[in-house]
Amino acid sequence: MADPLDDIRLLFERLPGPNEAAVAGVRARDAQLTKPSGALGRLEDLAAWAAAWQGGTPLHANPIQVLVFAGNHGVAARGVSAYPPEVTAQMVANFAAGGAAINQLSAVAGVELSVHGLDLDRPTADFTQAPAMTGEDCAAAFHLGMEKVSKGTALVCVGEMGIGNTTSAGSLCAALFGGDGAQWAGPGTGLPAEGVSRKASVIDEALTFHQSDLADPLEVLRRLGGRELAAMAGAVLAARLAGVPVMLDGFVSCAAAAILAAVDGSALDHCRAAHRSAEPGHTRLLEALGQTPLLDLGMRLGEASGAALAANIFRAAIETHNGMATFSDAGVSGRDDP
Amino acid sequence: MADPLDDIRLLFERLPGPNEAAVAGVRARDAQLTKPSGALGRLEDLAAWAAAWQGGTPLHANPIQVLVFAGNHGVAARGVSAYPPEVTAQMVANFAAGGAAINQLSAVAGVELSVHGLDLDRPTADFTQAPAMTGEDCAAAFHLGMEKVSKGTALVCVGEMGIGNTTSAGSLCAALFGGDGAQWAGPGTGLPAEGVSRKASVIDEALTFHQSDLADPLEVLRRLGGRELAAMAGAVLAARLAGVPVMLDGFVSCAAAAILAAVDGSALDHCRAAHRSAEPGHTRLLEALGQTPLLDLGMRLGEASGAALAANIFRAAIETHNGMATFSDAGVSGRDDP
Repeated sequence: MADPLDDIRLLFERLPGPNEAAVAGVRARDAQLTKPSGALGRLEDLAAWAAAWQGGTPLHANPIQVLVFAGNHGVAARGVSAYPPEVTAQMVANFAAGGAAINQLSAVAGVELSVHGLDLDRPTADFTQAPAMTGEDCAAAFHLGMEKVSKGTALVCVGEMGIGNTTSAGSLCAALFGGDGAQWAGPGTGLPAEGVSRKASVIDEALTFHQSDLADPLEVLRRLGGRELAAMAGAVLAARLAGVPVMLDGFVSCAAAAILAAVDGSALDHCRAAHRSAEPGHTRLLEALGQTPLLDLGMRLGEASGAALAANIFRAAIETHNGMATFSDAGVSGRDDP
Repeated sequence: MADPLDDIRLLFERLPGPNEAAVAGVRARDAQLTKPSGALGRLEDLAAWAAAWQGGTPLHANPIQVLVFAGNHGVAARGVSAYPPEVTAQMVANFAAGGAAINQLSAVAGVELSVHGLDLDRPTADFTQAPAMTGEDCAAAFHLGMEKVSKGTALVCVGEMGIGNTTSAGSLCAALFGGDGAQWAGPGTGLPAEGVSRKASVIDEALTFHQSDLADPLEVLRRLGGRELAAMAGAVLAARLAGVPVMLDGFVSCAAAAILAAVDGSALDHCRAAHRSAEPGHTRLLEALGQTPLLDLGMRLGEASGAALAANIFRAAIETHNGMATFSDAGVSGRDDP
């Protein structure tokens, strides 16, 4: 019987590469803009990166999608979160009512927020005792995530909500990058120290239970992930195929994306990390992914909150590149160099 | 004969302090919002800081002013910039025409930009050979800056343009905080290494020339500053008096503000540093001021560019605080703590 994840494996055979000509065009125009070369720092790099992955110029700053995926985790029953599992669905209702942080951050950033709860009344299995998902479940969540990315979007921000999902993310990171539970467990939504120790033990239990089945990254996702992680991975992959750059959010968002990087080392070249979360595992994960985050504000909320904040930096990068005058347009003298 | 700067000295006798009751109110509401406590990191601190200095609640996210002051410097004739002095006026024309980075960044941030050229056809004196300004000139520029801050503004961002002004800022920092030219000179708009050495020597010459007259910070401003630095200092002080928090920009903006801190150690409590400039002296200056910048994106443009980018983070902080639902409003369960 075919593995339901095989369709996804095939997608990696046709990952588009960067548009190097567009990058060169952006770098050439950048050198003529009315500012010293390099003076906009990472904004200049973001413009070149957008050119690489939007597939050409002119660069687009709009529309920006914020996709938030929510899932429930059987492992939440193990006391790995400061909040009870019903908070996932309550927060999804709060998103719908406009009451969460991401609603305000999306409004401030002028981006299009959509929230997708995935079978919230059907938590994944406790992955210390069984694979979190069947292949069908995992593939369905992955494909749902893929479908939410609209072609022609300038940037997609991916984030999540799911009580217990930092335990899933930590397990997944340990499986992909090595290390034990103590290295990947953190306070999440605010666990006290004894809770973090319990969470580390739960991650170790999961690694032991699945130890002989962790060689394939998509199998890692199925066994240790969750529906919202699978959906985020799907959205990130679909964005690559559709020519849409991606802004990753925090620990869980980056852990989901890391699955793709484990399949193909270039699979996240169209992604940037929005921020460094206060969740300790995120710094370790960012290093493993070779990402330098744009923001470091001590945030640890998820919900794509950091990505939505960084969307404004992305837009600033695009609009300065597109809208600034050149030295010759503006009649501004160049450098004094002989 | 009265010192024209004495009127300014008197203003420090009536600096308002923070509204501690408003801060406590913001902290109390923050604890009820639908997120784990502390999960918005520095956004939460920005909301509390806004409460302290806007003088109460509700917090205001709009309007935001961006004030850019421009001046010309006699010391530019000493070869301390990669660009010729006429670029100051050319860039002011570029600002007016909408072609500069700050025009785009202001549009993205939804803020009110105004640019104020100060006697551009009358550069300050070369401060290696004379005080940069007369007392009258310095006071006039300071008062012009003061006048540009509108009461009722939610936040004011202060920035500058002025060929040669990182040499002024470096001299001013050396006078206020110690160290020699080599410690405060950097590439500015992109000087090569030999230019940076020349700039360091120019700063050392200035320190030697004025060495017996650097005890009083406003006298330091008059002797080593420039009109745009005096105007920025004036704007920062006026904002304090008007109940308007301030977002400082890069090296020159912070150097101007440092004059106020040297007069009164609490004078910048209503200010936050938007970003860490790539100009090396800025990191040293931020440390001297006890400021941790919000952004670190390798920018080094001035023009309030970093402050305008950080204005969006400020707005995100205010809007999340004001607009989020509380746990009880949203029917979201609280922590599992016994």
